[in-house]
Amino acid sequence: MPVLALGDVLLVTLQGDLHDSAAERLQHDIAERVAREPVAGVVIDISGVEVVDSFLARVLAEIASTARLLAARTVLAGMRPAVAVTLVELGLTLPELTTVLDVGQALALLGRTPSGPRARQGGA
Amino acid sequence: MPVLALGDVLLVTLQGDLHDSAAERLQHDIAERVAREPVAGVVIDISGVEVVDSFLARVLAEIASTARLLAARTVLAGMRPAVAVTLVELGLTLPELTTVLDVGQALALLGRTPSGPRARQGGA
Repeated sequence: MPVLALGDVLLVTLQGDLHDSAAERLQHDIAERVAREPVAGVVIDISGVEVVDSFLARVLAEIASTARLLAARTVLAGMRPAVAVTLVELGLTLPELTTVLDVGQALALLGRTPSGPRARQGGA
Repeated sequence: MPVLALGDVLLVTLQGDLHDSAAERLQHDIAERVAREPVAGVVIDISGVEVVDSFLARVLAEIASTARLLAARTVLAGMRPAVAVTLVELGLTLPELTTVLDVGQALALLGRTPSGPRARQGGA
């Protein structure tokens, strides 16, 4: 699971199934980097994920809580409409997470644009 | 457990294990000082703490709640990434607490810098 640094934002692109050990490794990896590097935000792109089950929902919530404890904000980008419907049906409304439509919006929200440094400070 | 006053900020540096009686004394000490002195914020530096269990998490949350009732803000500084992961695994996400990477950032967030008065108001 690659974690890409874009300035002070970490970009994680989830694709397909995330198994237990990979999820745990990802969580630790993000925690280490958020604590070590000057990371202001973590963007998790789930546009390639067609099914979010309760396990993945918990992993996403835990990544967000861990990042928050380490002073970074997590933004979830690109959720498919069918995934949103399923999550709500499962009662998993992810209150810990800010969601936006795509990575561009996530970077704008964190005050970054893909093309350069601090463009504007997005609202919450 | 020394509580250091830096202007109107109290700085508490936790090291190693905190036993029950010490935790209770610390909580009372902070409450007394916040009520007696013009304290705007309490910074708890836990960079020297390698293990946070549910007891310490509860103590931290109680200190924050007590300080808040006495009109001071508590900022937790220097949490290690492994500690953040463990806390989240235990379901202890410390929503009452603002966390930052180090004491410098905590002072900046509270509008103080180590070298002088109010420098900038950091975001949450």
